Amino acid sequence: MTEFSAPGFEIARGVWRHFAAHDITAIPEFVPARGLRVDLACLTAKGEVWIVEVKSSLADFRADQKWQNYLEWCDRFFWAVPADFPQEVLPDEGCGLIVADRFDAAILRDAPEDKLPAARRKAMTLKLARTAMRRQLQWLEPDLGDL
Amino acid sequence: MTEFSAPGFEIARGVWRHFAAHDITAIPEFVPARGLRVDLACLTAKGEVWIVEVKSSLADFRADQKWQNYLEWCDRFFWAVPADFPQEVLPDEGCGLIVADRFDAAILRDAPEDKLPAARRKAMTLKLARTAMRRQLQWLEPDLGDL
Repeated sequence: MTEFSAPGFEIARGVWRHFAAHDITAIPEFVPARGLRVDLACLTAKGEVWIVEVKSSLADFRADQKWQNYLEWCDRFFWAVPADFPQEVLPDEGCGLIVADRFDAAILRDAPEDKLPAARRKAMTLKLARTAMRRQLQWLEPDLGDL
Repeated sequence: MTEFSAPGFEIARGVWRHFAAHDITAIPEFVPARGLRVDLACLTAKGEVWIVEVKSSLADFRADQKWQNYLEWCDRFFWAVPADFPQEVLPDEGCGLIVADRFDAAILRDAPEDKLPAARRKAMTLKLARTAMRRQLQWLEPDLGDL
C-alpha cells in the first residue's frame, strides 16, 4: 500500500495538486524498474512521462545515491523541495526545480526534455495504467491485500 | 465520481476481483469517447484492452442501444451477467460471456480477439492511465472535486 505518511509526502502532495490543476496526472511511489521507486510519476495529456523526486531536507538529498538512474525512465525530471531547502546543492543539469508545500507548488525551473524511446514510453504508460488501476481496486477492497 | 452503488455494480465487482486474481487490471465507469461509458475497462499484462458490459437483468439489456459501439474500443468484448440472466438473448458473435456475483466470476465463453489499431491502443492506454491516476488523487483529496 502506498505510504501517504512517508517523509516528504507533504511536498509530493502539493506538487500532485498543482499538476492536477494543470491537467498533468500523477501517482506517488511508482516503481519503474526493480530497485527504483520514484516519489511521483506523471503523465501529461500528450503522453509525456515526468518524474518528480522529493527532497524534504539536505540529509534526505545526501542519502540518495540513485537519482541519476531515474533519468532514463522519463522525458523530464524535476526536484521538488520545501521553500527552506538549500537549492544550490541540487544538480541542475537535466533537472527542473519545483518548490512546494502541502497545498500547492511552483515550477521555478522547467526541466529539459530528454525523450524516452518509443518502446520504453509504451511500457511505462502501460505500467502506470495498470498500477493506478490496481490501486483503485485496493482502495475499494482492502481485503484483497497488496495487489 | 464513480458510482459504486449503480445497478449492476455488484456484478462488475465480482468480475473486477476475478480479473485482479488473474493479473488483469480494470476500472469501472470508463469513458472511451464522448457519449460512451463502459462498465469495466481492463488492461492485460501484454497491453490488451478488454471491455466488459454488465447486464443485471433482461430489461437492462433491452434498454442498451449502444453496446455495438463499444466493440471498436477494445481487443475483446465480454458480457457479464448474473446466474439467473437468460443468456440466450445475448448476441454471441464477437462477444465473450462471464457469469458473476459480487464475490467472483467465471468466464463461460472467451471473447474472440479483434485487434485495436496501434494508434487507438496507444490513446486508450494513455486515457486509462490518466483516468485511473486522477481517481487516486480524488480518493485522497475529495475536496479537489470531480477531476
